[in-house]
Amino acid sequence: MTDQPEFDAIEAIRRRQPPDGRVAFGIGDDTALLWGGPADWLVTVDMILEHVHFRPGTPLDLVGRKSLAVNLSDLAAMAGRPVAALVAMGIPSGYSARQIDDVYRGIEDLAREFHVAIVGGDTNRSHSGLVISITLLGHPTGKGAVTRSGAQPGDILMVTGKLGGSLAGRHLSFQPRVEEACRLHELVGLHAMMDLSDGLAGDIFHLSKESRCGIIIDVNLLPIHDDVVPDGRSTINHALHDGEDFELLFAVSPADADRLMSTQPLKPIPVSRIGEVVAGSEASMRQIDGSLSRLQPGGYVHRF
Amino acid sequence: MTDQPEFDAIEAIRRRQPPDGRVAFGIGDDTALLWGGPADWLVTVDMILEHVHFRPGTPLDLVGRKSLAVNLSDLAAMAGRPVAALVAMGIPSGYSARQIDDVYRGIEDLAREFHVAIVGGDTNRSHSGLVISITLLGHPTGKGAVTRSGAQPGDILMVTGKLGGSLAGRHLSFQPRVEEACRLHELVGLHAMMDLSDGLAGDIFHLSKESRCGIIIDVNLLPIHDDVVPDGRSTINHALHDGEDFELLFAVSPADADRLMSTQPLKPIPVSRIGEVVAGSEASMRQIDGSLSRLQPGGYVHRF
Repeated sequence: MTDQPEFDAIEAIRRRQPPDGRVAFGIGDDTALLWGGPADWLVTVDMILEHVHFRPGTPLDLVGRKSLAVNLSDLAAMAGRPVAALVAMGIPSGYSARQIDDVYRGIEDLAREFHVAIVGGDTNRSHSGLVISITLLGHPTGKGAVTRSGAQPGDILMVTGKLGGSLAGRHLSFQPRVEEACRLHELVGLHAMMDLSDGLAGDIFHLSKESRCGIIIDVNLLPIHDDVVPDGRSTINHALHDGEDFELLFAVSPADADRLMSTQPLKPIPVSRIGEVVAGSEASMRQIDGSLSRLQPGGYVHRF
Repeated sequence: MTDQPEFDAIEAIRRRQPPDGRVAFGIGDDTALLWGGPADWLVTVDMILEHVHFRPGTPLDLVGRKSLAVNLSDLAAMAGRPVAALVAMGIPSGYSARQIDDVYRGIEDLAREFHVAIVGGDTNRSHSGLVISITLLGHPTGKGAVTRSGAQPGDILMVTGKLGGSLAGRHLSFQPRVEEACRLHELVGLHAMMDLSDGLAGDIFHLSKESRCGIIIDVNLLPIHDDVVPDGRSTINHALHDGEDFELLFAVSPADADRLMSTQPLKPIPVSRIGEVVAGSEASMRQIDGSLSRLQPGGYVHRF
């Protein structure tokens, strides 16, 4: 299913891929072949579309970068280590070879940084905007994968980094928390974890649902990102709803939470206590005055 | 990266997935987890786009079916057995729940038929047409994967089925040759294999290039599909150039070719001898009068 003009791009990537002991063979055949072994495989896919996830005119290397970064963030959420990626793309007919190369360069630079082998792909014409769908494969570490379903009443909820204001630019340049997740997994017992892509106020429902627990978020404790600029909405509102933070949300025991708060092992990236896991199935917010109010599930609205 | 309205579709698929011993967990977390083991992994991705790979108005279950079928065909080309798929989709904003369901139903029905677990996905709005990108994972059989690179001078080139006229409708309903590939792999020594997606006259160059061999196609031997209707172009031209046949092209020893021709082990699907592998790097056609003419590489033009 390869169009000829774009075929050159795939050939170029193939030539640029260094030999990789994890990969029997990559680009150039009908499928890639990855060596088997005792380790289980984590697999995830994310698609990003022009007009939906990024504006026309966004630098194409940043678009490419983001298409892989969102997948790395998903893998980080399981405390996994990346191995290989497949890149499927719909490329607008008007793109020059240089533009196509820019997209791939953004993907490949981040792939190199995170030791990801690009083992396959599919390039096509798109009669509308740019579409990139990346599949990422990786392994859990020796401690196993961390899911969304292990949070227990009494656990403390924490996040890495700071929240809000990502759409000002950080949503294109964020650093996926792969190393940070593995470090946390080594240090403490991660009962549940996920990455924050749609905004804490929306994502929290997934953790709550999969763990069959209630959740209380303490709005006084939310770490507000410097990117949040004062406007009609409160900074807390931005931290809860802006989305595309790509930070980690995780549940640990109170003792582990205390240890993480005092040692701050990811410095300079903060880890912050933001709430707790409770019995039941409701998600609530502890307001500034200490009262509890029910958090309403709200869909993520792309804002471009 | 999940939009709320489409999230229901993913939830519905999740509920419909039967327990599967090959999958630790699938939809519902940031990644899926597949059990490790000694078997190597074949991985491939294909993206199909409205206006490019199918016309607006094409029945959506057939579009869904095709998006998985093209991947199964790639896996068949390696003589692999499918295990799991991830489905990334861009869904036009105007689609009803019923339309979304139609697409997934087409995917799921074929997945069930080929024992494929749907372990992950990503659904998004698309501001243009429908886009589906499916990643398929599978295992080679005990005899290993069959690549494009093992053809040798003296080998005989063969194809399964018949060629040409696929765009009249077969390109949506074709049966991926997964079982047929595994059967051939058991019976004979498959030196090289690939699936025919862009048309024999274009695809053959990939086999030639990867195997570093020349190729002669004998136009007298091409099995012409009944779907080829007489028009200004010769039936041979259709068989060479129409594309989307999704049959297997493979190279075997002359003795194995003779055996396959006489026993026809895939009945009622024919296997046909169509040419030979030679030294050098040129692809040629043996014309009806016996003369050789050089085959020109020609890009694949999507024709619906």
